[in-house]
Amino acid sequence: MIETDALIVGAGPVGLFQVFQLGLLDIKAQVVDSLPHAGGQCMELYPDKPIYDIPGTPRTSGRELVTSLLEQIKPFNAGFHLGQEVSTLAAQPDGRFLAETSRGTRFLAKTIFLAAGVGSFQPRRLKIEGLDAFEHSQLFHHTGDPALFAGKQVLVVGGDGAAIESACRLAEAGPHQALKVTLLHRREVLSASAAVLARFEAARASGAVDFRVGQVTGIEAAGGVLGAAQITDVNGETAPLPLDVMLVLLGLSPRLGPLADWGLDMERKQLSVDTEKFSTRVAGIFAVGDINTYPGKKKLILCGFHECVLAAFGAAALVFPDQKIQLQYTTTSPKLHRLLGVGSPLAD
Amino acid sequence: MIETDALIVGAGPVGLFQVFQLGLLDIKAQVVDSLPHAGGQCMELYPDKPIYDIPGTPRTSGRELVTSLLEQIKPFNAGFHLGQEVSTLAAQPDGRFLAETSRGTRFLAKTIFLAAGVGSFQPRRLKIEGLDAFEHSQLFHHTGDPALFAGKQVLVVGGDGAAIESACRLAEAGPHQALKVTLLHRREVLSASAAVLARFEAARASGAVDFRVGQVTGIEAAGGVLGAAQITDVNGETAPLPLDVMLVLLGLSPRLGPLADWGLDMERKQLSVDTEKFSTRVAGIFAVGDINTYPGKKKLILCGFHECVLAAFGAAALVFPDQKIQLQYTTTSPKLHRLLGVGSPLAD
Repeated sequence: MIETDALIVGAGPVGLFQVFQLGLLDIKAQVVDSLPHAGGQCMELYPDKPIYDIPGTPRTSGRELVTSLLEQIKPFNAGFHLGQEVSTLAAQPDGRFLAETSRGTRFLAKTIFLAAGVGSFQPRRLKIEGLDAFEHSQLFHHTGDPALFAGKQVLVVGGDGAAIESACRLAEAGPHQALKVTLLHRREVLSASAAVLARFEAARASGAVDFRVGQVTGIEAAGGVLGAAQITDVNGETAPLPLDVMLVLLGLSPRLGPLADWGLDMERKQLSVDTEKFSTRVAGIFAVGDINTYPGKKKLILCGFHECVLAAFGAAALVFPDQKIQLQYTTTSPKLHRLLGVGSPLAD
Repeated sequence: MIETDALIVGAGPVGLFQVFQLGLLDIKAQVVDSLPHAGGQCMELYPDKPIYDIPGTPRTSGRELVTSLLEQIKPFNAGFHLGQEVSTLAAQPDGRFLAETSRGTRFLAKTIFLAAGVGSFQPRRLKIEGLDAFEHSQLFHHTGDPALFAGKQVLVVGGDGAAIESACRLAEAGPHQALKVTLLHRREVLSASAAVLARFEAARASGAVDFRVGQVTGIEAAGGVLGAAQITDVNGETAPLPLDVMLVLLGLSPRLGPLADWGLDMERKQLSVDTEKFSTRVAGIFAVGDINTYPGKKKLILCGFHECVLAAFGAAALVFPDQKIQLQYTTTSPKLHRLLGVGSPLAD
């Protein structure tokens, strides 16, 4: 059981910056995210695309922004619990919240910050009977460790940039080269940048990657081993494709998940909050970023950053009920310099 | 007369970012500030001190932040009108506002954004009869062009880092070296960093700068020329100090100025706004940054940035009354890429 001042659900940019704002108020935080890495949507959907509207940063990318935020919050040593989602949340008699994740991590937290964006991002899955039993052995939804695919017959399912790049990478000569790579997409038209498509054409021309148009409609397995996928082509004809590993890259879909059942005020899958503390109607549970709604709400990262500030002050009143909490400035406050681990510049 | 969609009063970080947020909605802006340069408090009070709480920017300084913001808003070509303050503001029958500055610049604006921080920053002045007549000829409140002091007898009044550094700099050997530099402070104790104090001690030891403790209590002038200041020392004795130029560096004091008389809801020198559009009680006049107040308000730059977003949408409804305004993302919107003057990345 991990006891903490604050449990932050969601490690996207807003969840990360929540760590920072709580840290400045000396509130310790733990962070849970369903993805295996920090960064949320930013890292999943546009890691390398430009972002122009972070104030004071004329141009960044999802990846760069997340990297900067991780550096910024480093002084506060938040605990990260990735690859798991908060599955239950229950108020305790002493006013704290007991939370448990899908991996069994348990928290006793004075305050909860829901920074879960549009919900947990879950890889889209193929709905094929019996397929899920091979998850983590022969079925994957992230490219992950290339060694998993070395010397194997790989079927990559998908038609976007991520799927095409993965197919090309797995087929590349090297210590982890796959034996055979087939890219399967439901239609002829692929959706990727010109550079990625050129790379794919070269890989096809050299015979490194095979491209098939069709859909997986079944599997063949024996003795607990997945041996082939049944592929149905555009003419409705089905044939088996032998494989060792299936890599399904169909993008992500958000799922609000258990949050929906916590008795918080929901308005079209969003949590209603006040604009003074960004508190839900349950005292001690705050909601920041794309998951919340209030009059005027704009789903922008920078609005989430502001919400983190006011929510942190809202939490401070609960975590330190006997203290008067005052706003201090990182430029001048020796207390904040100590918390940030930076030397105080001499008075000037 | 300059006709504009939006007139922004204040060129501090929040006023600058207001240009950006309006620009994304294709709203053209003009900016007025009483200081001779953009940057507001940030540039005046802590240009070189660290700022740690701008999201995604682990460490910056007032100067760096302002430089980045100026780069970020460049695509929107806002008009800047510096060194002047808005002295009158009057609603027109057609719903627009007529504003005039202290230098006579006139604007007819569809919307007004008050981003004036704690008001206009005015250099603190010596209250000596007849002295103000020499402003810009023999009396200065900014160091400005060093050529103004070359070969002159200079009296620098002040005891902080800026005053001490200016005294040292004016005394330095070079094409603009002053003939004689005296630093006058009301008490023996100076307030500056160790490095600045060491530089000052060296300048004193070499005879480059003279240090006097006392106050200016009068002036001697003849034929329209300021010839000396009367200095009263700690024992109450007064003697004239011959000079050609007086540089008064006593810091800045904020002054709310004419704003206070515009019939807006004031609460302890701040403007009450809603949190949906950050509008004052006068439709079309928005207030963002340190000058506004609402439940939960924290006077942080990053909160001002958020306020700019919602205020910009509030203004869009007035500037484009017949359009439905939709939030678009700088990462993906071709329209925003066109406004920002950046190439659209290919779909991926």
